[in-house]
Amino acid sequence: MNRRLLLHAGGDGTSARPAVIEHLRGARRAVMIPYAQSDHDRATARFQEWLAPQGVEIIGVHTASDPRAAIGGAEAIFVTGGNSFRLVSALHSLSLIDAVRSAIDSGIPYYGASAGANVACPTIRTTNDMPIVQPPSFAAFNLVPFQINPHYIDPPPPEARIGETREERLTEFLEENDVSVVALREQGWLEVDGESMHLRGTGGAVLFRRGADPAELKAGVDLSALLVETPRFDA
Amino acid sequence: MNRRLLLHAGGDGTSARPAVIEHLRGARRAVMIPYAQSDHDRATARFQEWLAPQGVEIIGVHTASDPRAAIGGAEAIFVTGGNSFRLVSALHSLSLIDAVRSAIDSGIPYYGASAGANVACPTIRTTNDMPIVQPPSFAAFNLVPFQINPHYIDPPPPEARIGETREERLTEFLEENDVSVVALREQGWLEVDGESMHLRGTGGAVLFRRGADPAELKAGVDLSALLVETPRFDA
Repeated sequence: MNRRLLLHAGGDGTSARPAVIEHLRGARRAVMIPYAQSDHDRATARFQEWLAPQGVEIIGVHTASDPRAAIGGAEAIFVTGGNSFRLVSALHSLSLIDAVRSAIDSGIPYYGASAGANVACPTIRTTNDMPIVQPPSFAAFNLVPFQINPHYIDPPPPEARIGETREERLTEFLEENDVSVVALREQGWLEVDGESMHLRGTGGAVLFRRGADPAELKAGVDLSALLVETPRFDA
Repeated sequence: MNRRLLLHAGGDGTSARPAVIEHLRGARRAVMIPYAQSDHDRATARFQEWLAPQGVEIIGVHTASDPRAAIGGAEAIFVTGGNSFRLVSALHSLSLIDAVRSAIDSGIPYYGASAGANVACPTIRTTNDMPIVQPPSFAAFNLVPFQINPHYIDPPPPEARIGETREERLTEFLEENDVSVVALREQGWLEVDGESMHLRGTGGAVLFRRGADPAELKAGVDLSALLVETPRFDA
């Protein structure tokens, strides 16, 4: 399996643009899945703006008469950020989960930012988003066997805490699921190329695993071992 | 219908204790639903500590051989905070949704904090919690016809933003659902007594409605009109 993935934490994505272009390795026709946002045209146009001058055409899958066929014919797949529940609901109702997985397994590059990075995981159980719609399932593309928490925020000082910290939420996740979580700070991303995975960007990340203290990850670190783990989700 | 509800935003709940005692109106035997947390005994003990000296016995429903019967025999119901997905999963798997609703419809007081306030609403679609487990449904007790967002945080200045602001998340909720949302800051709570509802505490709240700007709500305001709205949730 030669999956090629660029999974971005979100935030200002401009610093990752050279890496995205390199990631495309000459692909000229990318299909965008914009369902995390309510305005699909606008979500697509934001990428069109900087990709068109690079010679990359980007087509919103929402404009296709047959979305599954559009995915099947894509040279690259982009999944933008927004609300993960809205996104995964649309993926299920349009039967795009297995279509995207097959396309990526055939070796075309996947770029996901924020919600788009979350749905590359087995489930959306580590999203920060509000469950504004009820999807039939939290199951996602399962392109990697671990979970990503995008936009990771380090715990604030106790006097500034309102509700649970992100660290507390991820600890709750590990109480219920024995699955590694890469919590990506903004401006950080994961680059997967077949059996190898590295942390890129400037934000860094924190690795959460059941029974271990959260571990700081620095840009450049080799995380390939996470690609061969077996996740265990609660029913 | 004479529902009596005290729905607390969460945070340090000590300022609400006199109101909780008054809310009980002499009830001496309260049943606690602690499933939002992983340590049920600890969640119950934290309330026992301050309620026992007030002459109120509190019993964790997790210690009952028949949880539905325990709810049926309760003089008051407490639902504590934690993870709303874990809570609503347990409520469905133990068939407690209708049992609690019937008990509250019979006139006994309900006290819910944070996740416990969220499940008093039609659904958990306005929770801030991470979806660490997948419940069979987001449907909750439906004791009020609007949604609560607990621990509301006002938008930070743009340079301090990481991911979506709470206001953006609630705006996304309103894109998908035509349902009022009372966003309660910490130290704020709603008091429902039959057909009347007021905002109490010191935190204040913000009212979000489709097609309207967010509106600041001050302590003491009469919100009874929200009790007779008809919510419209997306499928």
